[in-house]
Amino acid sequence: MKKIAVLLSGCGVYDGAEIHEATLSLLAIAQQGASYSIFAPNVDQHHVVNHMTGEEMPETRNVLTESARIARGNIADLKDYDPADFDALLLPGGFGAAKNLSSFAFEGPECTVNPDVEKAVAETVKTEKPLGALCIAPAVIVRILKDAEVTIGQDSGTATAIEKMGGKHTNTTHGEIVIDEKYKLVTTPCYMLDANIEQIYAGANNVVAKLIEMIS
Amino acid sequence: MKKIAVLLSGCGVYDGAEIHEATLSLLAIAQQGASYSIFAPNVDQHHVVNHMTGEEMPETRNVLTESARIARGNIADLKDYDPADFDALLLPGGFGAAKNLSSFAFEGPECTVNPDVEKAVAETVKTEKPLGALCIAPAVIVRILKDAEVTIGQDSGTATAIEKMGGKHTNTTHGEIVIDEKYKLVTTPCYMLDANIEQIYAGANNVVAKLIEMIS
Repeated sequence: MKKIAVLLSGCGVYDGAEIHEATLSLLAIAQQGASYSIFAPNVDQHHVVNHMTGEEMPETRNVLTESARIARGNIADLKDYDPADFDALLLPGGFGAAKNLSSFAFEGPECTVNPDVEKAVAETVKTEKPLGALCIAPAVIVRILKDAEVTIGQDSGTATAIEKMGGKHTNTTHGEIVIDEKYKLVTTPCYMLDANIEQIYAGANNVVAKLIEMIS
Repeated sequence: MKKIAVLLSGCGVYDGAEIHEATLSLLAIAQQGASYSIFAPNVDQHHVVNHMTGEEMPETRNVLTESARIARGNIADLKDYDPADFDALLLPGGFGAAKNLSSFAFEGPECTVNPDVEKAVAETVKTEKPLGALCIAPAVIVRILKDAEVTIGQDSGTATAIEKMGGKHTNTTHGEIVIDEKYKLVTTPCYMLDANIEQIYAGANNVVAKLIEMIS
C-alpha cells in the first residue's frame, strides 16, 4: 500500500488548513487505495481569525494542536517526518500555508518558510518522491524549490509573485492539475478559485491520482 | 433544487462537530444535486479539548464561531433557522452533539437539550420535513422526540440510554441506515463505530440519499 504524508497548517481556511481541501484529500487517498499519515509544525499560528467576521481574535493557538482536529488526534510533529517512510508528500491549502507554513500572505515573494516545512519539502524532492500541493500551498513550494512549475488558478497577483520567486505559473480552472516532471510536483487551484465543494473533491482526486501514478 | 439545512456543533470530534462527518455530508449533499445552508447555536462550547492529548484546555470557544471554520464563514445562528425555508435538516456527529447541542455526554438519558436545537428539530418534524443524524447525534434526536427509532451503531451503553429515553435502537454496521417512517428520520453510525473515512463517506451518502428520497 502506498503511503502518503499529509502536511497541515491548522484548522480553518482563514488562519489554518482549509478543512474541505484537507478532508477531501484524505478521502481521495483512501479511495485510491493508499494510506495517509498527518503532520503539522509544532509552532504557534500567525494569528487566530474569527471565521464569521474575518476579524482577528485575541488568542494564541498552536498549528499542530489545531491540525489534530482534522486528524482526529492521529497526527505527528513535522520534525518527525522522514521521507524514507513515505511514498509522497501532499500539502492541502488554506491561508495557514501562507501564514503558518510561510509568511507568503504578508511578504509575498520575499517570504520566509518554516524550517521544518522547508526541510520536509527539500528532502522529499532529494529522495525523488512526488509532491502534491493544493490552493495557495504551491506558492510555498516555489519559495523552497525556486524554479518549480505550478498553478494556483487564475489570481494574477499570486501568479506574479510566483514568477518573481523563480517559478513558472500556468492558469488553470476547477480540477485541472499542472505537473512539474523535474520535481515530480503536481498542483491544483481548489479554493484559490471561487469553487464549490464538488470542485475541491475533483481537484484533490486528480492530484492524488497523479501522485500515486508518479510513485516509482 | 432541494435545500438541506446542516446543524453543526463546533469544529473537532472531541469538543465539537466531527470534521469528516460534517465535510462529507456537505459533499454528499452537493453531489446528489441539493444545496446546503449551515447553522449552529450561538453558545459557548461545553469545553475545549486538546485533540492531541485529549486533555481540557483553559479556553472558551463559541460553537457558532468555531463551526464557521467548517462552513468557511457561510453560516447562520440556529435561532434564524426556519424549516419553511428548507426541505430537510441534517445533524452530523462528534462529541459536540453530546456536549454542546445537549448534555448527553454527561447526563445520559436525563440530559437537557439546547432550546434552539430542540425547537429546530421539533418544528422540522411538525412541518413533516425529513431529518438525518449521524454518529451520536441520533441520541439528541431521541431526547427530543422520545419514541424515535434510530441507530448509533453497536455501543451497548449508548443504545441502553436511547431505550431509556423512550427510543428504539437497532444495531448497524458501517454505512447502514435506520429509517423511522413516522418521523421521516434517517440515522447511521459513522465514527460511533471504529470507522475509516471511506466508511464515513458511505454513511453520509446513504443518509443524504434517503433524506432526498423522503422529501415530498
